[in-house]
Amino acid sequence: MKIGILTSGGDCPGLNAVIRGAVLKGERVHDAEFVGIRNGWNGLVEGEFITLDRHSVRGLSGQGGTILGSSRTNPFEGANGGPENIQRTLDAEGIDAVIAIGGEGTLTAAHRLTEAGLKIVGVPKTIDNDLEATDYSFGFNTAVEIATEAIDRLRTTAESHGRCMVVEVMGRHVGWIALHSGMAGGAHAILIPEQPKTIEQICEWVEHVRARGRAPVIVVSEGFLLSGMEQAHSHKGLDAFDRPRLGGISEIIAPLIEETTGIESRATVLGHTQRGGAPSAYDRVLATRLGMAAVDAIYAEQWGSMVSLRGTEIEVVSIAAATIGLKKVSPVRYDEAAVLFG
Amino acid sequence: MKIGILTSGGDCPGLNAVIRGAVLKGERVHDAEFVGIRNGWNGLVEGEFITLDRHSVRGLSGQGGTILGSSRTNPFEGANGGPENIQRTLDAEGIDAVIAIGGEGTLTAAHRLTEAGLKIVGVPKTIDNDLEATDYSFGFNTAVEIATEAIDRLRTTAESHGRCMVVEVMGRHVGWIALHSGMAGGAHAILIPEQPKTIEQICEWVEHVRARGRAPVIVVSEGFLLSGMEQAHSHKGLDAFDRPRLGGISEIIAPLIEETTGIESRATVLGHTQRGGAPSAYDRVLATRLGMAAVDAIYAEQWGSMVSLRGTEIEVVSIAAATIGLKKVSPVRYDEAAVLFG
Amino acid sequence: MKIGILTSGGDCPGLNAVIRGAVLKGERVHDAEFVGIRNGWNGLVEGEFITLDRHSVRGLSGQGGTILGSSRTNPFEGANGGPENIQRTLDAEGIDAVIAIGGEGTLTAAHRLTEAGLKIVGVPKTIDNDLEATDYSFGFNTAVEIATEAIDRLRTTAESHGRCMVVEVMGRHVGWIALHSGMAGGAHAILIPEQPKTIEQICEWVEHVRARGRAPVIVVSEGFLLSGMEQAHSHKGLDAFDRPRLGGISEIIAPLIEETTGIESRATVLGHTQRGGAPSAYDRVLATRLGMAAVDAIYAEQWGSMVSLRGTEIEVVSIAAATIGLKKVSPVRYDEAAVLFG
Amino acid sequence: MKIGILTSGGDCPGLNAVIRGAVLKGERVHDAEFVGIRNGWNGLVEGEFITLDRHSVRGLSGQGGTILGSSRTNPFEGANGGPENIQRTLDAEGIDAVIAIGGEGTLTAAHRLTEAGLKIVGVPKTIDNDLEATDYSFGFNTAVEIATEAIDRLRTTAESHGRCMVVEVMGRHVGWIALHSGMAGGAHAILIPEQPKTIEQICEWVEHVRARGRAPVIVVSEGFLLSGMEQAHSHKGLDAFDRPRLGGISEIIAPLIEETTGIESRATVLGHTQRGGAPSAYDRVLATRLGMAAVDAIYAEQWGSMVSLRGTEIEVVSIAAATIGLKKVSPVRYDEAAVLFG
Repeated sequence: MKIGILTSGGDCPGLNAVIRGAVLKGERVHDAEFVGIRNGWNGLVEGEFITLDRHSVRGLSGQGGTILGSSRTNPFEGANGGPENIQRTLDAEGIDAVIAIGGEGTLTAAHRLTEAGLKIVGVPKTIDNDLEATDYSFGFNTAVEIATEAIDRLRTTAESHGRCMVVEVMGRHVGWIALHSGMAGGAHAILIPEQPKTIEQICEWVEHVRARGRAPVIVVSEGFLLSGMEQAHSHKGLDAFDRPRLGGISEIIAPLIEETTGIESRATVLGHTQRGGAPSAYDRVLATRLGMAAVDAIYAEQWGSMVSLRGTEIEVVSIAAATIGLKKVSPVRYDEAAVLFG
Repeated sequence: MKIGILTSGGDCPGLNAVIRGAVLKGERVHDAEFVGIRNGWNGLVEGEFITLDRHSVRGLSGQGGTILGSSRTNPFEGANGGPENIQRTLDAEGIDAVIAIGGEGTLTAAHRLTEAGLKIVGVPKTIDNDLEATDYSFGFNTAVEIATEAIDRLRTTAESHGRCMVVEVMGRHVGWIALHSGMAGGAHAILIPEQPKTIEQICEWVEHVRARGRAPVIVVSEGFLLSGMEQAHSHKGLDAFDRPRLGGISEIIAPLIEETTGIESRATVLGHTQRGGAPSAYDRVLATRLGMAAVDAIYAEQWGSMVSLRGTEIEVVSIAAATIGLKKVSPVRYDEAAVLFG
Repeated sequence: MKIGILTSGGDCPGLNAVIRGAVLKGERVHDAEFVGIRNGWNGLVEGEFITLDRHSVRGLSGQGGTILGSSRTNPFEGANGGPENIQRTLDAEGIDAVIAIGGEGTLTAAHRLTEAGLKIVGVPKTIDNDLEATDYSFGFNTAVEIATEAIDRLRTTAESHGRCMVVEVMGRHVGWIALHSGMAGGAHAILIPEQPKTIEQICEWVEHVRARGRAPVIVVSEGFLLSGMEQAHSHKGLDAFDRPRLGGISEIIAPLIEETTGIESRATVLGHTQRGGAPSAYDRVLATRLGMAAVDAIYAEQWGSMVSLRGTEIEVVSIAAATIGLKKVSPVRYDEAAVLFG
Repeated sequence: MKIGILTSGGDCPGLNAVIRGAVLKGERVHDAEFVGIRNGWNGLVEGEFITLDRHSVRGLSGQGGTILGSSRTNPFEGANGGPENIQRTLDAEGIDAVIAIGGEGTLTAAHRLTEAGLKIVGVPKTIDNDLEATDYSFGFNTAVEIATEAIDRLRTTAESHGRCMVVEVMGRHVGWIALHSGMAGGAHAILIPEQPKTIEQICEWVEHVRARGRAPVIVVSEGFLLSGMEQAHSHKGLDAFDRPRLGGISEIIAPLIEETTGIESRATVLGHTQRGGAPSAYDRVLATRLGMAAVDAIYAEQWGSMVSLRGTEIEVVSIAAATIGLKKVSPVRYDEAAVLFG
């Protein structure tokens, strides 16, 4: 059996570990052959392939990025897009099945293609951890560790100058990175898309912290919305790729805090550093296990399914069930963290 | 309500985050008072207490060790030990209930004391991750990250000299740290207590790796047993505190590999660095949540219970159920990793 | 002898190590007493002091920020400013001499005060490493390590998406942080204030890198000037404290590159993370040695002097000589690095 | 001109950065060609070569180990050894000159070969920083950072259990790594080969620290000698490669401290982790500059010379002058640090 692998969408620490896990499991256990599909769906649409064997995955478990490259190509668009053309390309290359590693968009596209008869298994990839049907996705743990280290560093400079620090982390639609890095970093307030707050509420926390003689540290998701501001619109039409360009929300909040409270305030946008570089050990293990399980799903012919983490086990679930909605931070989890605010 | 907190047994990154989480949740939500019990059960037996309020826990979430100190005192031993004496000490100090943070021994003792009428809730602490009824325990993630970083470093020196590296990590009875750090570090063999192997099997892996022109990296749990050696006895009577002194197994295996295969081999015992220092963000979040949940369990009067992690949720379980046996690495998990060996 | 210590200006990893080194050396060798002056010169002007003894400096060598607090107060301004008032404040507090830790402004002020008869010794502090008369200043090494780690991370995401990354590091007037982190991180171009370049030259490098199939990584000092742009003015009136707010130059360059070359480009401003958090071992050793040497200079009555690093030795030099001009990156050092560009 | 490069002796973070710096500078500025000599002098004796061009050095600045491999072969030994044979091998391969990267032994051999007419330039490599004529050598800074991080971690576990920690770092003949990591880590005693101490003196420090209610942390060089013990002999016949196997001195001292003071004591041998893995930014910059300067020295035909660091500048010095003796820690530097002991 010849299996193609592609990585699609914004990159994420652990992509290479998934690829390595799949190739080693496939070659050793199932005697599979592999081929690398370049730049996500674009490689299938345009027919760009690279050899992918055990030598090409050597030492990849700890390497950031993706050796296959990535893109945002929609497989249903373009002259060579759509199920028929893609199937023709696969046949020409002798590819029997495909492992598609990507986020909600990629998985939904994969699912539609399987409905048209293509043989695809998905691996969920979202640094924001916003996919249902998986407890955690690889890359998230690394992003939280990096954000927490930055918050630790920013706290000392905040304390030295008696300033308020507003740290902007990734999370366009959900606040998981902010929630975890904020709890880990001892933030005095965590602002997430699921919980709009007024500037008054934020300043109340800031002043409460200041009253105790401390320097307020606020962690905010890039997708947080300030209640009563039309600022929501500014997010329109932006996607994962543009996020670090957005910056924005922390640079809107910091001056408002300074203006309202008189406390010198600074914004820091962590940006792309959260998604680059070597994956944490946690993400390497998770990604390796997902890659291995994806190959097993291929041999079990579970087309249209994806592999996921449940507790400590890797499971196979239907993509349809996994992509019904975003996994948001529940009020219960937010309130749990909010006890530590102010 | 006045709540006493104690930390018992070998230290573990995240102990201070548990204490901080408990104190902040207790003071802010339940209006509780806290008192610190010094050096584990010894503080209850000898009556050593320190003040514990929100100021004493400031900035603790990222701090290693335990501000309360620890010891291996058995609360049932000594002139002032036993339920009656301890209850008398608690009454004298006006302590209504106790949060006991510790491993299997500590939790079992806590459970026996609750059977004698004491009001105690447990928080599981085991760097080895060997407790049933919790998916992961705080400290484990940090240990795995530290061990993985060391394996990454040792690989480059192994490659430069064409040597075999045997890296010894913690794990006296179970191989979780070796399994995860070995998978993350791309080890060519992982040796754990649950899976005795012969030196011949180990050397077969080593030679297979060498035949592919690579430098073999082997990760071994301190508690691994070499099949057919009486070396098991050398472990007798050792406990978590003595472990780094043991060293040993890697220093037994490395020379045997060199002797059998002729490949220059080196042993490195990571030792105490795995359990010291700042906890990872993952462990800070887990420990903080467990501390907060322990206070809730106190107010729910769930004596004899402990808090634990299930998937992404914190649950309350009975200590009795949690301590029936060690959580071992299953053959399924070991075989999953073994695909990557050699 | 009673010695006051103050830290002035933007914070810098190593400030606490200087304080600790001075206090331990002073107490143990010279039997000195110490008092902490709060928030830089402001503490002398307004008379804010805190106790400073061996207990207050315990464990400080690895701690970021400054336990004394900092400010930008000019000691010659305000109703209570000026040599006479400050001397009166010192006499009232029984302070015999002062160790002033700060940058060019602080040291120049210290020098002027010594000319008016005050007993002050300086310790140079500049994260930008822009002070003459010292090979390196503490904080610089830490900033370079943090920036390099960020560049390493950003490279992988750049490669995955075939993008150009523009990383903005600190350095308002000199390019040392960019030069060192750029060389360490393997940047394809380093842009510093000492070497204005046209956007055409920058794009030439970018296209050359792209032609070799790689993702261009450009490191730029915040103070870099694009030849032929009036953008210089935008820097007016900004100081070390406002720098991370400036951001800017990378956000100007990245779109210009994308526009000119058609290569998707992203800007990342590292900001305050470079100056916060735990100092590197290098900076801890340097800062500790400087603090100890400052106390010796006090006992040698070398008023108006500052301690500095020359090769591997700590020397005492006159502040006047040290502050004649900024230590810029020489054309020789820039050309050395430029060999690696493109 | 065709230049061969070899790396000899124990590996060291930064070797690959030297190779990269040399190749890029040589190809771009001098239009040189390069060839990689495998496994140190052995490659010249046995004639093992690999291609070495800009593609083979891509991304090497941050990679640990050496892509050329290393060995301890003495170029004057063996049937194919000695100047004549080596010159013949070089002629056969068309190699005009050689860059030899190694420690004292390698440089001395290189010097002897140049006296026999071979065209060789040296680059000093010693993780111990024990070479005269260079302020610092690459690898040393990385080793100190790693050792300091370990000391930071070990302190917290020491404090939690009220134990004494004895941390053994590299340094067979000189104590630079112990001196710097001990100062950075706030050690209560630093034991180095240059300063033999009695166990009584060590225990006096330990008890003094304990009397202040703290947990003693002692950093010891592997080559430290306990006054009045014949233990010196145990070092006989060991070389850089065997060092981590030695362990030893900390495992001798810790039990003696426990026996004498009654304070529970533990030994940790950091071993190979100090010399493996990614170099620090400091070492990447230093190594890159040394590699570039070595190529210039080749074109300046400075045979028998080596490149070195003086202050902030790279200089060319004669190997003969550089290898007259070991660079030891001076009493002045030791006494400076000793102020912080106890």
